[in-house]
Amino acid sequence: KAPEGRSSGVLERLNAGEVVIGDGGFVFALEKRGYVKAGPWTPEVTVTHPEAVRQLHREFLRAGANVMQAYTFYASDDKLENRSQTLKITVTQINEAACDLAKQVAGEGDALAAAGVCQTPSYLSCKSETDVKAVFKRQLDVFVKKNVDFLIAEYFEHVEEAVWAVEVLKTSGKPVAASMCIGPEGDLHGVPAGECAVRLVKAGAQIVGVNCHFDPMTCVKAVKLMKEGVEKSGLKAHYMVQPLAYHVPDSTYLGYTELPEFPFALEPRIVTRWDVHKYTREAYKAGIRFIGGCCGFEPYHIRAVAEELAAERGIMPAGSEKHGMWGAGLEMHTKPWVRARCRREYWENLLPASGRPKCASLSTPESWGVTKGHADLLQHKEATTTQEMKHALEMQKKAKSSG
Amino acid sequence: KAPEGRSSGVLERLNAGEVVIGDGGFVFALEKRGYVKAGPWTPEVTVTHPEAVRQLHREFLRAGANVMQAYTFYASDDKLENRSQTLKITVTQINEAACDLAKQVAGEGDALAAAGVCQTPSYLSCKSETDVKAVFKRQLDVFVKKNVDFLIAEYFEHVEEAVWAVEVLKTSGKPVAASMCIGPEGDLHGVPAGECAVRLVKAGAQIVGVNCHFDPMTCVKAVKLMKEGVEKSGLKAHYMVQPLAYHVPDSTYLGYTELPEFPFALEPRIVTRWDVHKYTREAYKAGIRFIGGCCGFEPYHIRAVAEELAAERGIMPAGSEKHGMWGAGLEMHTKPWVRARCRREYWENLLPASGRPKCASLSTPESWGVTKGHADLLQHKEATTTQEMKHALEMQKKAKSSG
Amino acid sequence: KAPEGRSSGVLERLNAGEVVIGDGGFVFALEKRGYVKAGPWTPEVTVTHPEAVRQLHREFLRAGANVMQAYTFYASDDKLENRSQTLKITVTQINEAACDLAKQVAGEGDALAAAGVCQTPSYLSCKSETDVKAVFKRQLDVFVKKNVDFLIAEYFEHVEEAVWAVEVLKTSGKPVAASMCIGPEGDLHGVPAGECAVRLVKAGAQIVGVNCHFDPMTCVKAVKLMKEGVEKSGLKAHYMVQPLAYHVPDSTYLGYTELPEFPFALEPRIVTRWDVHKYTREAYKAGIRFIGGCCGFEPYHIRAVAEELAAERGIMPAGSEKHGMWGAGLEMHTKPWVRARCRREYWENLLPASGRPKCASLSTPESWGVTKGHADLLQHKEATTTQEMKHALEMQKKAKSSG
Amino acid sequence: KAPEGRSSGVLERLNAGEVVIGDGGFVFALEKRGYVKAGPWTPEVTVTHPEAVRQLHREFLRAGANVMQAYTFYASDDKLENRSQTLKITVTQINEAACDLAKQVAGEGDALAAAGVCQTPSYLSCKSETDVKAVFKRQLDVFVKKNVDFLIAEYFEHVEEAVWAVEVLKTSGKPVAASMCIGPEGDLHGVPAGECAVRLVKAGAQIVGVNCHFDPMTCVKAVKLMKEGVEKSGLKAHYMVQPLAYHVPDSTYLGYTELPEFPFALEPRIVTRWDVHKYTREAYKAGIRFIGGCCGFEPYHIRAVAEELAAERGIMPAGSEKHGMWGAGLEMHTKPWVRARCRREYWENLLPASGRPKCASLSTPESWGVTKGHADLLQHKEATTTQEMKHALEMQKKAKSSG
Repeated sequence: KAPEGRSSGVLERLNAGEVVIGDGGFVFALEKRGYVKAGPWTPEVTVTHPEAVRQLHREFLRAGANVMQAYTFYASDDKLENRSQTLKITVTQINEAACDLAKQVAGEGDALAAAGVCQTPSYLSCKSETDVKAVFKRQLDVFVKKNVDFLIAEYFEHVEEAVWAVEVLKTSGKPVAASMCIGPEGDLHGVPAGECAVRLVKAGAQIVGVNCHFDPMTCVKAVKLMKEGVEKSGLKAHYMVQPLAYHVPDSTYLGYTELPEFPFALEPRIVTRWDVHKYTREAYKAGIRFIGGCCGFEPYHIRAVAEELAAERGIMPAGSEKHGMWGAGLEMHTKPWVRARCRREYWENLLPASGRPKCASLSTPESWGVTKGHADLLQHKEATTTQEMKHALEMQKKAKSSG
Repeated sequence: KAPEGRSSGVLERLNAGEVVIGDGGFVFALEKRGYVKAGPWTPEVTVTHPEAVRQLHREFLRAGANVMQAYTFYASDDKLENRSQTLKITVTQINEAACDLAKQVAGEGDALAAAGVCQTPSYLSCKSETDVKAVFKRQLDVFVKKNVDFLIAEYFEHVEEAVWAVEVLKTSGKPVAASMCIGPEGDLHGVPAGECAVRLVKAGAQIVGVNCHFDPMTCVKAVKLMKEGVEKSGLKAHYMVQPLAYHVPDSTYLGYTELPEFPFALEPRIVTRWDVHKYTREAYKAGIRFIGGCCGFEPYHIRAVAEELAAERGIMPAGSEKHGMWGAGLEMHTKPWVRARCRREYWENLLPASGRPKCASLSTPESWGVTKGHADLLQHKEATTTQEMKHALEMQKKAKSSG
Repeated sequence: KAPEGRSSGVLERLNAGEVVIGDGGFVFALEKRGYVKAGPWTPEVTVTHPEAVRQLHREFLRAGANVMQAYTFYASDDKLENRSQTLKITVTQINEAACDLAKQVAGEGDALAAAGVCQTPSYLSCKSETDVKAVFKRQLDVFVKKNVDFLIAEYFEHVEEAVWAVEVLKTSGKPVAASMCIGPEGDLHGVPAGECAVRLVKAGAQIVGVNCHFDPMTCVKAVKLMKEGVEKSGLKAHYMVQPLAYHVPDSTYLGYTELPEFPFALEPRIVTRWDVHKYTREAYKAGIRFIGGCCGFEPYHIRAVAEELAAERGIMPAGSEKHGMWGAGLEMHTKPWVRARCRREYWENLLPASGRPKCASLSTPESWGVTKGHADLLQHKEATTTQEMKHALEMQKKAKSSG
Repeated sequence: KAPEGRSSGVLERLNAGEVVIGDGGFVFALEKRGYVKAGPWTPEVTVTHPEAVRQLHREFLRAGANVMQAYTFYASDDKLENRSQTLKITVTQINEAACDLAKQVAGEGDALAAAGVCQTPSYLSCKSETDVKAVFKRQLDVFVKKNVDFLIAEYFEHVEEAVWAVEVLKTSGKPVAASMCIGPEGDLHGVPAGECAVRLVKAGAQIVGVNCHFDPMTCVKAVKLMKEGVEKSGLKAHYMVQPLAYHVPDSTYLGYTELPEFPFALEPRIVTRWDVHKYTREAYKAGIRFIGGCCGFEPYHIRAVAEELAAERGIMPAGSEKHGMWGAGLEMHTKPWVRARCRREYWENLLPASGRPKCASLSTPESWGVTKGHADLLQHKEATTTQEMKHALEMQKKAKSSG
């Protein structure tokens, strides 16, 4: 065990019953800051503007995150080849820079550096297990070389591919966390959430859970099902949850991508810090100990995770010097009616208005009902053709009218 | 005139008919990033974490902003004395650091460095004109020493105080912009918006307008009234608008501070980039040429200002390399139904849902109906007392039940 | 003065400071019951199914109404000629039957029989004053023959036509009430509400006010303006209000007809009995003493008017034997949680949900901006032609997209 | 088979594949008209104001209903004893008058007279099977004496009691329909919907289904489950559905009584005639052939059932002389923008606004989780005591805060 608990690994912490606070979402935060392009979503910013990535890591660290996850999302050969063909930067450069940044900031506080792989275009295009695993292996080589603290297989819609990822990551000997972007309904092939978890644990993942695609409470529900499944099978694991910071009760099995607001009009759905308090408590009560966020989670959301668990953890994050618990800082506000809001009861019970009287509260998801292997999902290097767009618009119109 | 238009001043640009794009909101953005405390809202981060401020400046620059406004909001003696008495950092240090950061980043692109003053606790506590002006003067001394490009008197609820600020700033010989946080109803003493503008122009402001407190469309409406007032008086001026990035149609004369969601549950009200397109066009059509944002405006919102005016300005911001106009980047998205959204028509007509079926669309503002000189607004150095809180809660309950 | 107050006339009652409770809406209620056709809206049911009309009168009487208004709405020559050319029933027959029914039921309780005229297609088609007055005169002849207690000129969008109607009705020597379907913005020619009232009083109306087109609170606001206008002019009058039973805050100068929900999807906007309590109190406080309802007002709404004013009037309506004040009857409900709702505080503060998570709260009115004399408003005897429909659809599309 | 199809019985019609259109809701309609008291809900109006009941029957007949259901809801000894102890009218008188009215109006058109029993306070208070059956028997004696065409056991929350009712009604030799007020979740003892249906068919019901408590689409879903259950068991039956005319997606197993708006603020939830078109089509497609409505269904809703199935049935209801299909009557409206709405496409796709920007779209149901035998449900003759009310308010507060 490391001195000062600092370099204590992720499994040591979880085994000791500690809470490990994850970080928030890089893709969406950096899109809003101007460094990531929505659509391809690739992370070349780690090479082109490292200061922007470093700053975001620092903000999450300051907010209380114990994990600096290298920003390697979609940094795989097949993805970059497809999406950014004109890009002069190699996959290896991106992954190396990402690991360097995560390790640097992790070293500035009580955090571990992690790196991860996620679902691949190769799988969706029905490539072989060997091909898909090769994609993961090339990323893993960098992670091992950079010696991150642990590995994460995340954002998988199909447990089959997630298991392959875990099998590859396990070859490194490092701890492996596996997180799927599924809800309580299970994976896209219809495998129930509990069964997904069992397969991941059997494949060697020490931590299992879900991330992205659904809102906080829905994700907690899915992880609960995973935990039940694992426990029923007589297996053991730790549990993680890293949900969206968006309210998406209207999304179905494919999550927020199905909602008409994705990805450029999700603002009204952003969760408040008080929503995060409720989510954190719910996750903690469910026995989940790796608690963080995904798309939409900003530093102040992660700080709310840390603040909700301040008593249990016996520690407040650095960033709380700039935040009174439950709005206590408002005691110093100029307007007396705002000062009157410096109370937990006030914020805990507030139902926030949207300021949009011509908007509904729920949307109709565009459920096309396609998954791995469907022609509409096959990857090609060119941008959408006119023909494809025409087809897509027809599908969209049909999906809308059936809503 | 400067080579390459670079060092061309704000008035030269406006006189030449150019659009000057302002930056967005520092206070709220840095609160979410963990560096500013809601309640006191003071900007000591310029000294303690300059990298966080610099990064935000750079993001706005990249988004297309032509103004790097030094982060000096509420950095006045009386405010800091009152709110952060234990703070070891002086007002001068904060203002100096703020100017340095703004100037540094402005030098990295096509931007000017500005610095500003805003309304003071002294005024609200009925101090004399001499006292209030002295507060402004001490800030101005730093701005002059640091030689920023121009000055802004912003966030004034009472035109009387705004005029005093302009009078002080004018002594420097630098261009002065004056912006009030009022809506179409006029200032808190009942002076109509048009009359406010006239007084500011007569006091020497070359640019007048509004910022903060109201949503984009409401702010444009207020500036239109200002323009009408100025033109009716046979005066001349340039116009600026820097609204909230929140939909607050339910707020009344005191703006978003009256809404129960202020400041910790405003998320559902955040404007989308498409809302910003509409706002920008409306502001441009109204003849406003200094167009930016205030609280809630993130870099991607400012980029939307620049993109909407790309044709008029003949230039795209650097940050647009990471953004397809009207969602064009979605052509490269994995999911075909998301690809189908890469069209202007789609986003322009979308009414985004809130995902909150138990929330209303409008709130009841807590209109206490107090202003300058009212006992409830007098400043004191201590935090809210129990007695005051009791009074405040009674007022709040009353305000709610009358809604 | 009449024995038992029964046959005391409308002016005697109002002069004595009494409240006169109007009835509710026949057109919409009978449309829902299957006897009136939306579109032409003509009242031939008085002849074809008198029992349906009599029953509705009785329900309003039982609910506390003191006025049985003969169901003569749109029963004018020019309207019937145009709209129901195949109708074998004459205008005179309809008006006579309507008066008979109103008088019969009025005689069953403490109520007066009234009859009225409303705006004419002739006026909208720019016929002369003589022509328009002749239309009113033919209706008046029946009302005089049937000897109703007083007369009402109601549902006028233009004060010019309303004045003509009053002038005709005054020739009978009976008391005349004049009610316009305008909001606080004034009539469709831009005459302010206060000025409209002054003109009507000068023409001889003893009671003035508004009916239809706007929601209860908006109508009260309009009548307040009328009262101010009349009092400023040194004139005297009584005031009446008969609003919609629909929440239509989004309608503009032409009222609910502009809303996309008119007339077949207004259900979510129907006011509750508790909304009526608030409206009644507001109207009473404003000094309005003739208080009733228009389209959408069902018997239980009128009963709520009577119950709200039970203390002031010292009387409860017959129908209250079947209604506990403020839900008191729920004391006898089977489910204990429903019993817990038998309290004023509960209902007074409840904000009812719509059960429609995909519907917005406000609509965009279709404001075509046409009025008297515009080609689109000229009456013709044929149903809409294909050409006209094409034009109408284009206007509709335009109105929507500008919303 | 009867001449003119008139006296053809309910089973003959259903066996022949015909659609039988039920009537709508008497309890809520007559409460709004002023003849039924919310809370006790008892139907003594059949004796005191027969003309009001007769008129409502006639409106439903005119709207196309083929069933005139005698208004005998809650007209049982134990209910009246409990709820209306001061009532001078006997249960027998009420039931006799109800049958007379139903038969009279049925004779005026193509309709059958039915009479029914519903769940009893005796059952909820744990009385014996013998006691409960005796209550039903006393009502049945009247129905047999009055010789109605068929019998309905409706509004049962527990299948056990429903079976008892069917067993009693079957002794008459008349056709028996059995309808429970359950949703897809099954009865309050946890018996699945399919199993409920099987038990009812085995007890002798020839028609089974659901009524009340849930919205149209939810009720259709529940009947589908019933049909599946019956067919899986190799049994045969006809199916009926008579839902609420309210949107209550937020209600749980106890239906709309759990919603805070019940019973006095349900207005925003009322379904439009276009909602009824969709429901009718869905019910028809599901193989349901007895289609009507329950609480909230007004004559125009029933007319919409008949109009939707006009092609299948080859007949339009009498009331359609006053209604253009899909709003066709608007062709004759004065305002051209309203004329533009005379199209199916317009109404079918309209999402109606509520006009209430401060109301949410969903409510939190007050789920107390109590059922038969729970102390809170035991019947007593007195109104709620202070002690009970205190308990109820505590439960209510608890239910709300957990929402």
